Amino acid sequence: MSGPATDAPREECGVIGVYAPGRHAARIAFFGLHTLQHRGQEATGIASCDRGTVHLHRAPGLVGSVFNEDNLSTLAGEAAIGHNRYSTTGASSVRNIQPQVIETIDGPLAVAHNGNLVNAPQLRRELLENGVGLQTSSDTELIVQLLVVGTGDWLARIRTLMARLEGAYSLTIMTREAVYGVRDPRGFRPLVMGRLDDGWVLASESCALSVVGASFTGEVAPGQIARIDPGGMTLEQGAPPLRRAFCTFEHIYFSRPDTHHGGSLVHAVRQRLGRRLAMEAPTDADVVVPVPDSGNPQAVGYAQQSALPYTDGLIKNRYVGRTFIEPTQELREAGVAMKFNPLGDNVKGKRVVLVDDSIVRGTTSGPLVRMLREAGAVEVHVRVACPPITDPCYMGVDMAAKDELIASDRPVSEICDHIGADSLAFLSLEGMMQALEASDGYCNACFTGDYPFEPERFVQLELGSKNQFASVWGD
Amino acid sequence: MSGPATDAPREECGVIGVYAPGRHAARIAFFGLHTLQHRGQEATGIASCDRGTVHLHRAPGLVGSVFNEDNLSTLAGEAAIGHNRYSTTGASSVRNIQPQVIETIDGPLAVAHNGNLVNAPQLRRELLENGVGLQTSSDTELIVQLLVVGTGDWLARIRTLMARLEGAYSLTIMTREAVYGVRDPRGFRPLVMGRLDDGWVLASESCALSVVGASFTGEVAPGQIARIDPGGMTLEQGAPPLRRAFCTFEHIYFSRPDTHHGGSLVHAVRQRLGRRLAMEAPTDADVVVPVPDSGNPQAVGYAQQSALPYTDGLIKNRYVGRTFIEPTQELREAGVAMKFNPLGDNVKGKRVVLVDDSIVRGTTSGPLVRMLREAGAVEVHVRVACPPITDPCYMGVDMAAKDELIASDRPVSEICDHIGADSLAFLSLEGMMQALEASDGYCNACFTGDYPFEPERFVQLELGSKNQFASVWGD
Amino acid sequence: MSGPATDAPREECGVIGVYAPGRHAARIAFFGLHTLQHRGQEATGIASCDRGTVHLHRAPGLVGSVFNEDNLSTLAGEAAIGHNRYSTTGASSVRNIQPQVIETIDGPLAVAHNGNLVNAPQLRRELLENGVGLQTSSDTELIVQLLVVGTGDWLARIRTLMARLEGAYSLTIMTREAVYGVRDPRGFRPLVMGRLDDGWVLASESCALSVVGASFTGEVAPGQIARIDPGGMTLEQGAPPLRRAFCTFEHIYFSRPDTHHGGSLVHAVRQRLGRRLAMEAPTDADVVVPVPDSGNPQAVGYAQQSALPYTDGLIKNRYVGRTFIEPTQELREAGVAMKFNPLGDNVKGKRVVLVDDSIVRGTTSGPLVRMLREAGAVEVHVRVACPPITDPCYMGVDMAAKDELIASDRPVSEICDHIGADSLAFLSLEGMMQALEASDGYCNACFTGDYPFEPERFVQLELGSKNQFASVWGD
Amino acid sequence: MSGPATDAPREECGVIGVYAPGRHAARIAFFGLHTLQHRGQEATGIASCDRGTVHLHRAPGLVGSVFNEDNLSTLAGEAAIGHNRYSTTGASSVRNIQPQVIETIDGPLAVAHNGNLVNAPQLRRELLENGVGLQTSSDTELIVQLLVVGTGDWLARIRTLMARLEGAYSLTIMTREAVYGVRDPRGFRPLVMGRLDDGWVLASESCALSVVGASFTGEVAPGQIARIDPGGMTLEQGAPPLRRAFCTFEHIYFSRPDTHHGGSLVHAVRQRLGRRLAMEAPTDADVVVPVPDSGNPQAVGYAQQSALPYTDGLIKNRYVGRTFIEPTQELREAGVAMKFNPLGDNVKGKRVVLVDDSIVRGTTSGPLVRMLREAGAVEVHVRVACPPITDPCYMGVDMAAKDELIASDRPVSEICDHIGADSLAFLSLEGMMQALEASDGYCNACFTGDYPFEPERFVQLELGSKNQFASVWGD
Repeated sequence: MSGPATDAPREECGVIGVYAPGRHAARIAFFGLHTLQHRGQEATGIASCDRGTVHLHRAPGLVGSVFNEDNLSTLAGEAAIGHNRYSTTGASSVRNIQPQVIETIDGPLAVAHNGNLVNAPQLRRELLENGVGLQTSSDTELIVQLLVVGTGDWLARIRTLMARLEGAYSLTIMTREAVYGVRDPRGFRPLVMGRLDDGWVLASESCALSVVGASFTGEVAPGQIARIDPGGMTLEQGAPPLRRAFCTFEHIYFSRPDTHHGGSLVHAVRQRLGRRLAMEAPTDADVVVPVPDSGNPQAVGYAQQSALPYTDGLIKNRYVGRTFIEPTQELREAGVAMKFNPLGDNVKGKRVVLVDDSIVRGTTSGPLVRMLREAGAVEVHVRVACPPITDPCYMGVDMAAKDELIASDRPVSEICDHIGADSLAFLSLEGMMQALEASDGYCNACFTGDYPFEPERFVQLELGSKNQFASVWGD
Repeated sequence: MSGPATDAPREECGVIGVYAPGRHAARIAFFGLHTLQHRGQEATGIASCDRGTVHLHRAPGLVGSVFNEDNLSTLAGEAAIGHNRYSTTGASSVRNIQPQVIETIDGPLAVAHNGNLVNAPQLRRELLENGVGLQTSSDTELIVQLLVVGTGDWLARIRTLMARLEGAYSLTIMTREAVYGVRDPRGFRPLVMGRLDDGWVLASESCALSVVGASFTGEVAPGQIARIDPGGMTLEQGAPPLRRAFCTFEHIYFSRPDTHHGGSLVHAVRQRLGRRLAMEAPTDADVVVPVPDSGNPQAVGYAQQSALPYTDGLIKNRYVGRTFIEPTQELREAGVAMKFNPLGDNVKGKRVVLVDDSIVRGTTSGPLVRMLREAGAVEVHVRVACPPITDPCYMGVDMAAKDELIASDRPVSEICDHIGADSLAFLSLEGMMQALEASDGYCNACFTGDYPFEPERFVQLELGSKNQFASVWGD
Repeated sequence: MSGPATDAPREECGVIGVYAPGRHAARIAFFGLHTLQHRGQEATGIASCDRGTVHLHRAPGLVGSVFNEDNLSTLAGEAAIGHNRYSTTGASSVRNIQPQVIETIDGPLAVAHNGNLVNAPQLRRELLENGVGLQTSSDTELIVQLLVVGTGDWLARIRTLMARLEGAYSLTIMTREAVYGVRDPRGFRPLVMGRLDDGWVLASESCALSVVGASFTGEVAPGQIARIDPGGMTLEQGAPPLRRAFCTFEHIYFSRPDTHHGGSLVHAVRQRLGRRLAMEAPTDADVVVPVPDSGNPQAVGYAQQSALPYTDGLIKNRYVGRTFIEPTQELREAGVAMKFNPLGDNVKGKRVVLVDDSIVRGTTSGPLVRMLREAGAVEVHVRVACPPITDPCYMGVDMAAKDELIASDRPVSEICDHIGADSLAFLSLEGMMQALEASDGYCNACFTGDYPFEPERFVQLELGSKNQFASVWGD
Repeated sequence: MSGPATDAPREECGVIGVYAPGRHAARIAFFGLHTLQHRGQEATGIASCDRGTVHLHRAPGLVGSVFNEDNLSTLAGEAAIGHNRYSTTGASSVRNIQPQVIETIDGPLAVAHNGNLVNAPQLRRELLENGVGLQTSSDTELIVQLLVVGTGDWLARIRTLMARLEGAYSLTIMTREAVYGVRDPRGFRPLVMGRLDDGWVLASESCALSVVGASFTGEVAPGQIARIDPGGMTLEQGAPPLRRAFCTFEHIYFSRPDTHHGGSLVHAVRQRLGRRLAMEAPTDADVVVPVPDSGNPQAVGYAQQSALPYTDGLIKNRYVGRTFIEPTQELREAGVAMKFNPLGDNVKGKRVVLVDDSIVRGTTSGPLVRMLREAGAVEVHVRVACPPITDPCYMGVDMAAKDELIASDRPVSEICDHIGADSLAFLSLEGMMQALEASDGYCNACFTGDYPFEPERFVQLELGSKNQFASVWGD
């Protein structure tokens, strides 16, 4: 897989929650969000709570540019939650930036959400039918409104909420009294806890804990509610856990290499994926080359296992951001690839193993194979450190529609022809699970079509409902 | 009164509504809002409806800078409503910009509001108690939510809404089926109707009708609902009209001189106010000088009536916007007035009648009197073309708190001493009503303390409730 | 004349110079430029000098928005010059913003310029031929470079410069040692001097002096150099004065009404222009109505002289800025005038005298006459308080090309037909001079074609040369 | 070395030049500059020439954000030059953004410059003494003015220029007739040539050639002038070549890995540097870990040579931009490192070889060693793939002042203590040259203090002269 701008899946969001008596919680949230920047670059926001009053700052942009000392200082208080939002095209709206904050009879409520509700259309319809108006097209507002219309204390409402939601959600919630971390009963998306000297931090990934000096104390378990208040952190089962279905792609692509999931360091898992791949699909070749940067650890693992030399064969332009300039046909043919350039000397005359972390649409692999050949590689063998992606994700990963997935209806041989490689191999599902050192507990629906729920029940409604409400950027 | 930046009352907003079959309604709304720019310069927005889908663009800034062909073209459809928001300091928030738009089970709903609800705290509490969450601190969201939770068709809900609201409101409302204009039963704030060849326009002032080629067809009467849909315009009484209480200050200061209220041209009323003032408080003087620009018509009337020559004695810097540069004490003493400069030749050796439209805090009058004296005026007689303002407004005009009003507890003689004039006279209440050619139908509470409702019932709650919810700009 | 956005001439710039021992000169310059905002709204800049080091801040925008305490505080020192630049379309460039600052062997040099050099193409060619490179297309850079390549001390170089320049120039110049004010030998554009307690101010208009607490001490006379340094202010004749040719349009339109030129208050002159007009072209009418705001004093004078009542008949939208939204043909026909609206009640059934300060292209007069008729005026008699403009200006006023001037080749009767008035009269040249209380000393070339120099010698070259160098905004 | 934000040298700029008959040269320049983004992120600009008229767009920001289709389309013509400017703190000014463009008697002249002139103060003084004014503090303006005041055709003037300049310069120059590439006689900074089907490209690095479809045809040799016009590309020796002194740091750090210098692929050189380092300073260790990303190829080489496993031990936050939020002392102590995070599993219990490309101030190495130890590394041996940097650079690399260089006056053992490593070794000068496969031709002054010229002759003047001229951002 070659990166966000090309053939990568997209995920929606990172979350954080902080309760730190006597300290400026928003500042801690800032550094946490900064560390979670890879989970969302479109927009960011922090809501803090200072003696019952909620303060909020949200805006499009990177964490480092949205916040400054001026606005951060307005976010007073010992409690804060925050959110990074992934870049999606078109439907962006200032109103959709999280956290969402609302005033209720029981005080202000703030929610940050990572995931995707598969029963959002149903919930949406039901709320509307019950006379609730909705100001955005986001799942998060559904969560907010379900909490608002609930009864009992916040903990009771969160329990009721969990009974209603279907799909993926890792939430941080802030009320006047407490900060909560909530994770869906299958644990699709990550959510971890850390301990400060005198406080707690909830975050999407453990890398955000270590950066702010919090020691990892465990995951919020599937179906669990973590509640942090002046009395300390308490954990309770908010909903009965279902069969664990943690997103394999967190290991394969999304998470930062220095994050741990389920006790495993992501970087180590990626190296093991590469090692397994080398065992399953060894190659008679001269060098192992990664698709940078996401394929690097896998390639290192492949090289170590196969005792082939590891080297860079492609360079990625670090500063490529969005550019609105189109190359002419002439420039396109000349190879204005913009994102990658080959390292001819490293591949010239060589038989190359090109290791990628995954292939989604397959739009990048072909050009990369061609690029390596033109740079002198005599053979290019593509090795992909996960199985073929055959089915779309409904749990918060914006991969592609089924008919856009190159492996949805093609055998490997055909994909190999399509991308022009000398050989192509994917890691097997079993091999992947061995690298994960697990036999169960993961959602592999994108590889198997075996969803943890029945997608037919939900997907149908989706298209109709969201289109009723459109708004233009700037609002 | 000397203008928005100094000693002027502030009002909140102008509204517009358009239904124009076969035409681009948002474009018409744009030109209407442009004409209503004097009613609000902080922010502006338009929501349009195109075959059931609502499009929205809102942003801080002037109408001419917020909208461009790109974003206007996204606002498709034959129906549109729009809003201009007045500049207030501090509590500004992107979320408070109108129109507010919400999705309901009966389709999208958009609302634009001019006025102030005196029972907002009660409504707020009640909505919250009924399990409705609120995302802003604005009256408009209360109106939106009361409509959402209502039952029956939109017309029925608007009727129910009107039964609940207390205070000032002129609304434009847009649903999938129709555009509505709604005015409170006392008719505090203006709302007029106009006819296009094949459509209708609702607007805060008639000047916005003529600019878009709509012919004035009448006011939306107090308590009335105007409903525009493909079948035409229908009017019905949504709430029983109460004693009419149209804001006198629309004539005195707010409205554009080319607007008509109650059949009277604002400019003509202002001239008559000046004439009456000359009858009541004639002056043995040489020239009549206005406080520009808002006092000009009154001064013209005063001069005509008293047969004294009219001339300019003060120049106002047209380009003065907000500046953040502070003069030093030295510069301040030297008279960095910034906003006004005297025309020495016109006042030197003269006995001057200085005609102002009103005095609120009295902070500008003193410096102007001093400025004229320093420029050579031998006498300065201040004449104010309305009565002393003694009481605050709770119906949408941000005048000042009672203890900031210079006339709240001072006799005229004391104010005269305070501002250093040779004499000071205010127009009497009776004189003002004669100039308005009316004996009744106006809200004069700011001159009399005689409110159309009992303020004690409402005002108490106000301070407590709004502070529960704070957010910073940028959200 | 109806205002900058319509049928008005355009001028380029206002200048200021400050030397104030022990004080923050840039702050004084700021308030002066703020007062001179009407002379240029495109861009502004201040250069200050602090113990030999020059600091500079320039940017597009209004004075109040370009400067803030942060950037103003960097403009340290007791000496400063500043500039406001008029808005012109298209050829704008950040590089053309003044003051221009350059380092020379004799220290830094800063120049701000108001006017237009008629021999710019010759000077440009000569400098280029002498091996000087030019980075902008502005006259100001020519002045800067002529000073740089000069010999002797700065005073000597300024004298040499003056011998080379032909046309209009009022300059403020700053070097390490002194601040200078320089005015061309004919005194086309204004430049005045004022005294602070312990310093001096040079400015385009006297209104800028009074605002910063400086007392007017006189004009920089044609051909004179004012030099301000720690030793005080000295005046010397830098070039022999030629026949004085002060721009009449400063009185007619450009200058602020509270400014004095040649001892006369601009506002008073404008009233006298109206009075003379009433003597020369009396009208059997009911009311006198100005084209606001620039025609107001003239209309007041006309009304006083003719003993007809003065009233407003047209309202001007104060907030009209640039808008990029085009009205449809339908809206245009409906009268989306945007800038003016009629006051029907004041003109209905009346015979109206419409007083304008001038007519340039004649594009506004017709629509205004039509607007008044549609509002009910039974007769509209247009009276213009200056003679017909028949010839273009080459001395810094961007009026129009000769073939765009409506009076360049049409008799008054034809113009009257063209604008649809019942009658049309212009003030005579003699009448205008009487109102100016002068028999000589003014440049009336735009009324007479009698230029103070031979335009044929210069104009030819102009078009060719400037086009060699184009750059886009953003640079 | 750990990256631009920490302990890295800084270089000033990348340049490009394009001549492409029948094509849009600026578009090609855009893609070239985009590829050269790593050489400068502060600002960028392109000047194009269309039938004798030069068009220019320059602004602060990244290439992808400064240019859009609108402004690019104004940059018409078959010829273009462009520039990327490095981020430096404080002295930034819009006026210093390149290319610099000036009009001369022989038509417009545009210049883009990479390098640093050591005799700039002398040239500056001389130009000033000759009556030339200077508008910026940049070397580039000196070059422009020396060309302007020159005699003969442009080629002759460039020759004369080269005779005057001392120091580092790789220039692209555009006149009406031709595009030039010019390189100083020692060839300090790179400049290469490429061939389009029907045109030519000059660029700082070969990676920019391949991206736009140009085939590399060679370097512009030291002292050479490349001239491209409708007649084709001609090369001539503009100044006698001196002893070649190509900047070693282009190989060590600056250039993109896919660039070739002197026939060597930068990435391959970096791997060889790592291999040599492993030969000279082998380590009894368990893993080889790079300081990412600049140390990666060196670490790969070290691992291959030493047959130790290569792995990542540190993760670098890709999205770290400038942030203005300061961590509290508490957060700092907790390790808010922001830029790097350790990969505990990969180093725990391991003896680690940490490979860095270079050490400048030594501010990053200590924290990284500590971070690895805290993550569980039992030993940390630092290996640096170049010699100790002992002396500052005067040829365009902003490394540091001598007293800021950690190796300027400390033996290796002391640096080792300072950074807390178990051992520390630098590559020897000989080893580095062997990796470069060269015995001569490089400037190693920063390692040896042996400058290709006598720095005493130049450095003295520098401080005095530049301070005479200061300006604030925004100009």
